[in-house]
Parts: sequence; C-alpha cells; structure tokens
Amino acid sequence: MTKQLEENLATNFGIHFDNPKLLEEAFTQASYVNEHPNQGLKYYERIEFLGDAVLQLTVSEYIYQRYPELPQGKLSRLRAAMVQEDSFSKFALECNFDQYIRLGHGEEMAGARKRPSLLCDIFESFIGALYLDQGKAAVEKFISQVIFPKLDQGWFDHAVDYKTSLQEFLQRNGDVDIEYVVIDENGPDNDRQYQVEVQADERQIGVGTGTSKKHAEMQAAENALTKLRQVGK
Amino acid sequence: MTKQLEENLATNFGIHFDNPKLLEEAFTQASYVNEHPNQGLKYYERIEFLGDAVLQLTVSEYIYQRYPELPQGKLSRLRAAMVQEDSFSKFALECNFDQYIRLGHGEEMAGARKRPSLLCDIFESFIGALYLDQGKAAVEKFISQVIFPKLDQGWFDHAVDYKTSLQEFLQRNGDVDIEYVVIDENGPDNDRQYQVEVQADERQIGVGTGTSKKHAEMQAAENALTKLRQVGK
Repeated sequence: MTKQLEENLATNFGIHFDNPKLLEEAFTQASYVNEHPNQGLKYYERIEFLGDAVLQLTVSEYIYQRYPELPQGKLSRLRAAMVQEDSFSKFALECNFDQYIRLGHGEEMAGARKRPSLLCDIFESFIGALYLDQGKAAVEKFISQVIFPKLDQGWFDHAVDYKTSLQEFLQRNGDVDIEYVVIDENGPDNDRQYQVEVQADERQIGVGTGTSKKHAEMQAAENALTKLRQVGK
Repeated sequence: MTKQLEENLATNFGIHFDNPKLLEEAFTQASYVNEHPNQGLKYYERIEFLGDAVLQLTVSEYIYQRYPELPQGKLSRLRAAMVQEDSFSKFALECNFDQYIRLGHGEEMAGARKRPSLLCDIFESFIGALYLDQGKAAVEKFISQVIFPKLDQGWFDHAVDYKTSLQEFLQRNGDVDIEYVVIDENGPDNDRQYQVEVQADERQIGVGTGTSKKHAEMQAAENALTKLRQVGK
C-alpha cells in the first residue's frame, strides 16, 4: 500500500518521501505488527506522539500570526477546535488516508478502518513522519492545503464567535469599519426582541434578531459570514 | 528591567534579542498594563500561548530521538512530567526570571512574583519570544542547557521508571548487557522478601530488596542510578 500512498502524496500534495519506511511505520497499527511477527515492523504510536506536538505548534503559530488581535483565551479555544479527533479524522478521510492503513484481521473486521479515533491517530502519525522526513516547512505547506482553508470556510467559527470571525474575514485585506446597529426593537420588557444589522464601511451586509442585543449581533454576523462566503465561492 | 534581562541572557546563555519589545511583552503581566494605560503595552498571554506549543514540540522531539525504544505511553508520561508547572517554575527561578517580571502593584503585594503558576507562564512566554525572535534552533540550544540536563540528573525518573532510566543511562554510549538476578529470598510465603542485584556486563552495580521480585528490581535500579550519578559528578 505504501507505493499507492506515495503516489497519492506526490500527485495531490507534491510530497516525496526520502525514507518510505517512516511512511510505512506511520500507517501501521499494532494489530498488524502482532500478526506479522519477526519482520521487524514498527507501529505508528511513537511517530504519532511526535506528530501531535508538531500539529499543536504548526496550528498555534498560524493562528497566532493570522489573528494578531485575538486574546489568548480565544486562541486556545480556536486551537482546541482545530486540533481534535473530529477535525483530524475528517482531514484523514479527505486525504484518503483510510485506504493505506495496515490493520490486523480482527481490527479490520471490527471496522477500525473508518473509526474516527484511528483516523485521527493516522493523521497525526503522518504529520510526524512528514516532519521527520521533510522538516517543518513541508508540514506547514501540507497543513496550509488541508487545514487552514477550513478557517475561511467557517469550520471553526463556533470556537471563536461569529463577530470575531466576521472581523477577521473582512479585515484580511486591510482595515474595514464594522458597526452593529439596532434597527428595530419591540415586545414587552420581559420578552424584548431586537433586530440588528451589521455594516461594513456603512453598507449593510447582514441582519439578525434575538432576545438580547448580543444575540442579535451574533446572528447578524453569522448571516453576513454566510453571504460573504457564498459570494467568495 | 529589560536591559538587565538582556544582560542576563547574553552572559549566561549567549542570547541576543533582535527585538527587545518581544522580551518586554513576554515579561509583562496584564496587571502592569492595566496600571499603565495608553502606553500601548502588551502582556504576555498571547506569546505564552505560542511558547507552550514550542516547548511541547521541542521536548517531544528530544525524548523521541533520545529514547528510540521507549513506547508511546512512557514517552507521554515523561513529557507530562517535564512540561508542567512545577518543572517550568523551577527553571524560571533557576534563570532568575522572577527578577524581571513587570507586575501591577496589587499583584506585587500579593506575592505574585514567586507564585509558581506565574513563573511557569513567564518561562513559557520567554520561550515564545525566543522562538519568534531567534527561531527554533535557538530554543533548542537554550532548552538543552536548562531542561535536558535534568534528565541525567534524575528529575523525571519517576515518570518513566527506574529500570528504564537505568537502561537509557547505561546505553547512552553503546550496548550494555543488563541483568537482574535474585541473590536471596527468605521468609514465609505470605511475607516473602527478595534481594536482587542488577548487573551491567556481568558486574554488580546495584542491589535492592522488596516483597516482590519486581519491587526488588526497581530498588536495585534506583540504587545503581544513584551510585552511577555520584560517580558521574
């Protein structure tokens, strides 16, 4: 399977391993090693240990630089949303990594190949192998194809909050003046409804409603983001 | 204080910052910024966020390379013992970093300067600043002076276990044949006592006793490590 994996990496990511043994190790589960004793095979866990730390740093560095005004608490929440099993297992599937895992028979029968926890491990161990073989810059290049575009696609908005995401989105290419304006409010005091619009350089780009100004603003930001991203496509 | 800190770093570690502003940020607590508004000051939290990930990777990479046979579970335990508040706050004190922190008056009065959690933060934020200013190799050099020697001094033995530590210690410079031999056992079955000696290339280097062979072996390994490290000094 390593040959096909090497082809996949070369075709889709321009990655060429100097030492394919590392790649083999990164895609081999312990169950496979147990079924093939005396072949000097290694399984992925040690490389995954390293890959996990490589991903932590690469993602941290990227969001640190990209969001220069984001306070530490929000950086941490964003990183946690990006660096987790649910995200990594999806990235692994997107790269078709599930096809190349070497599993023992029992694990195969138990459906391990599509198990999110294994896919997450394999994504991390692949990063570890890439780091060992090609260095940090190669990891950054790969991650900038596979993970970072998801930020613009809104995968992790929930971790920061829509207002922050909208601000970052609009200010990517320079300063934009963003304002939230209450355009309507009605209902009794204990069930007040607010309608808010968000403006970019005095032009309305989204609207939202809510039982507090804050909720209405959030919804307006989400509404604007959705529309802007559709335009961007 | 930044001037004295720069002198400390130059004298003790050969470190020269290109951008001392980063160093200033890394040693400034939010309480100080609050007491000095309108000066455009920044506090350390964002840089600490980055430094934390830099330390994780630097330590992971080092122990991954240094202990090529250590399984992932033990690597994780060892890393957890190294990368934690108790360790980092001691390293910060060792580097006299406590002297250079810029604190608000209230925090100073409350004794924050010697608080382990703050010292730990400052150690991480210093690493973040060093990484941003001088790159990963500079961090590795600093860490190899401040953290890694502690491995040989036994600071983190408890995280791995004495037998593994002894093995790594002895095999740093090549293969050594290590054996544990029961040299005595006595007492009734329900209160058996074992005496074990550990041999390196058939020479006795430590002894231990315990109510199980395993405990006696652990004690023998600890005994050998203590003696070997005294010789090494």
